[in-house]
Amino acid sequence: LKLRSIRLLIIFLICGDLAIGQNKMIVFQSDFGLKDGAVAVMKGVALGVSDDLKLFDLTHEIPPFNIWEAAVRLQQTVPWWPEGTVFVSVVDPGVGTDRAPVVAKTKTGQYIVTPDNGTLTLIAENPGIVSVRKINELTNRLQGSRGSYTFEGRDVFAYTAARLASGVISYEEVGAIKLLPAQKLAYREAEYADRKLKGIVYILDREYGNVWTNITEKLFRRLGPHYGDLVILKVSREGRVVFEGEMPYCKTFGDVEAGLPLAYINSLEQLSFALNRGDFAGTHGIESGVEWEVEVTIREE
Amino acid sequence: LKLRSIRLLIIFLICGDLAIGQNKMIVFQSDFGLKDGAVAVMKGVALGVSDDLKLFDLTHEIPPFNIWEAAVRLQQTVPWWPEGTVFVSVVDPGVGTDRAPVVAKTKTGQYIVTPDNGTLTLIAENPGIVSVRKINELTNRLQGSRGSYTFEGRDVFAYTAARLASGVISYEEVGAIKLLPAQKLAYREAEYADRKLKGIVYILDREYGNVWTNITEKLFRRLGPHYGDLVILKVSREGRVVFEGEMPYCKTFGDVEAGLPLAYINSLEQLSFALNRGDFAGTHGIESGVEWEVEVTIREE
Amino acid sequence: LKLRSIRLLIIFLICGDLAIGQNKMIVFQSDFGLKDGAVAVMKGVALGVSDDLKLFDLTHEIPPFNIWEAAVRLQQTVPWWPEGTVFVSVVDPGVGTDRAPVVAKTKTGQYIVTPDNGTLTLIAENPGIVSVRKINELTNRLQGSRGSYTFEGRDVFAYTAARLASGVISYEEVGAIKLLPAQKLAYREAEYADRKLKGIVYILDREYGNVWTNITEKLFRRLGPHYGDLVILKVSREGRVVFEGEMPYCKTFGDVEAGLPLAYINSLEQLSFALNRGDFAGTHGIESGVEWEVEVTIREE
Repeated sequence: LKLRSIRLLIIFLICGDLAIGQNKMIVFQSDFGLKDGAVAVMKGVALGVSDDLKLFDLTHEIPPFNIWEAAVRLQQTVPWWPEGTVFVSVVDPGVGTDRAPVVAKTKTGQYIVTPDNGTLTLIAENPGIVSVRKINELTNRLQGSRGSYTFEGRDVFAYTAARLASGVISYEEVGAIKLLPAQKLAYREAEYADRKLKGIVYILDREYGNVWTNITEKLFRRLGPHYGDLVILKVSREGRVVFEGEMPYCKTFGDVEAGLPLAYINSLEQLSFALNRGDFAGTHGIESGVEWEVEVTIREE
Repeated sequence: LKLRSIRLLIIFLICGDLAIGQNKMIVFQSDFGLKDGAVAVMKGVALGVSDDLKLFDLTHEIPPFNIWEAAVRLQQTVPWWPEGTVFVSVVDPGVGTDRAPVVAKTKTGQYIVTPDNGTLTLIAENPGIVSVRKINELTNRLQGSRGSYTFEGRDVFAYTAARLASGVISYEEVGAIKLLPAQKLAYREAEYADRKLKGIVYILDREYGNVWTNITEKLFRRLGPHYGDLVILKVSREGRVVFEGEMPYCKTFGDVEAGLPLAYINSLEQLSFALNRGDFAGTHGIESGVEWEVEVTIREE
Repeated sequence: LKLRSIRLLIIFLICGDLAIGQNKMIVFQSDFGLKDGAVAVMKGVALGVSDDLKLFDLTHEIPPFNIWEAAVRLQQTVPWWPEGTVFVSVVDPGVGTDRAPVVAKTKTGQYIVTPDNGTLTLIAENPGIVSVRKINELTNRLQGSRGSYTFEGRDVFAYTAARLASGVISYEEVGAIKLLPAQKLAYREAEYADRKLKGIVYILDREYGNVWTNITEKLFRRLGPHYGDLVILKVSREGRVVFEGEMPYCKTFGDVEAGLPLAYINSLEQLSFALNRGDFAGTHGIESGVEWEVEVTIREE
């Protein structure tokens, strides 16, 4: 027992201070793709700040300038990472304009370094944001980079993330607390009325063509569904119906034969639609985003 | 000076045990693609188990549900990694059905965490599998994840891999040894008869369109080939001839001019076919898999 | 016990030195793509040399055999990484021919392990190369790999990089200094004459379709540009004009409306052209490389 406590004490002395706030992990997201050196440049700059950082990727294939999808991917991923992890998200149609570079701290203990352009919309709802600080570029900007206006991912976002993740600066040293809340994208929240659910196509599970809605399992339960019940789905874009059809509510994909449609609850506990071993979205021309609305009912026997 | 050596000694005592079985490295493979957060979620969960794991990727671009290709990529890659490395392979058309989640231990000392759906077919042949354990989900399943049926990559496979790789559990603690061998995909093994070789298109080297067969260099030697000899190749699919032609057996691509075909031995010591700086498979409409059969002879002078 | 602590102390003293020359980081680049196991095999071999290496990727989506693009990506990325980082670049149309496998040391302190086939063309100009050593394959080749001619990325390049990055060998132990300079690709350098600038399309920023030229900001200044001035661009391929048009010189993309063209200075301080939120290269059929020439003037009021 005495030995063990000495051992732990020494581990603590070695690893010490950092464990409290930050954990040396950075996870990068962008719309840069993986065909050029942009992501590697951000990582090189980060490792120049501290060479024991551990660097990971969320995705770099956000469709260019698609802030909504950046917001979705963060919400999908951030809460599964350890407290103290620092995310960098650079999807920034307004680069060079006056949207603020910020760091948000989530209620689950992670940090997100990003332009404040709507990227935080969904994470602000769930798990929620404790506070947002505007990056003070006088201290938190790569030296010698002021002549170059077009790569803030490197000069501000990756650099600040590395300083924060490595403990060179504390969260407080990022900059001042923002008084105004982070900018938000407007979208239709899912709602129940008159035995009908309305919402949007939250995102496509792009590898498979599955359609994920923003209707939660909890909301879906208000229709009183049982496995095997037929779910009627209508998808429209700006008032025009793109798809209408019905399919069974299933526990797993294997409950229907290959090629057949099903409704199911995805890993984010959202009502979703798929063709077993097929491409539901591609087959029916469905895309995702705030302008793609869905309506769901259960067929009465 | 004395203090420092004591500190190092203690680090050694703490880290010591692990070196024997597992090495804290995890390599991920899936058909999830890199467009969303699924891979990053698996990694976040793994790092939540132990923050000093080292995480790598094999590929996440296995064609959706293509178990054969998952099997090939594992066989191609696993033996090159250090003993004790833990691979996670999640290509799982039967998610939610009753195929077992397992961990296999290879004869070369690596572990593979995967649904037992044929993914282990090729690695079982070479380098071979020592044993397979069924994952006991009572202990080896992420807590609080039981309501969600569709992301076992996160809740069972990544989570168990992290526990194993970090030494939280030993291989024995994964679960009971399976009595039945792992499930296998049926395919035509390469064979020699009557100065002719038969086999299948094992895989395409997709970046270049090269055609790799399952005919080994050793088997090919039974035809007594010399560099410069003309190799006659016939490719058929379900009895219908798709390609027939001849090309020289070469030591390197540079032995023929750009655009010309050649036969060569690839890095897996398999007889392969290519167009120097061209796309053999695309040009001739050849795909890979168990239904794509090849026949090879050497032209007599 | 005393012996062991002395041993550890000595390890510590030995590892201390490393910080000076190499830093245990390897960054991989290739044209292998990410669909198969080739990249993971290189990494497994590297970790077999030393399990505390830190492995990263530049890109693996260099268009097959495109040495020019490999050269560009290195120049874009290498100088941003810490001194002592080892890069591996395997884009090698001449695999198996007698181009030499080499290690170059840059003036900014990084190492590049590559076939000497032109890949070093641009990095040799800026930041510059201190020296180039030919890899001695008698010592720096993976044992047991001599029968296999087609995967030098694994057997020579990744293996040597791992030995160098981990400190198993010093830079001097790579092999002898090459007397001849590294092979170079011929291309038109940017030039000013008669109030006109000439150069080439250096590269496409592929995610966005932006056109980056090899005309530096400094050279561009010889035209005396002010923000808002109209820049006239002509792009031709082998004498035939592909695009001709004019657009304002802007500080940031936000200075023009969505869909409109602009000229700007990119993060490499090169004169570049884009459509704000659009695809300039795709819209006008422009590609990159030494045969794509550009001519730039400023419109006189």
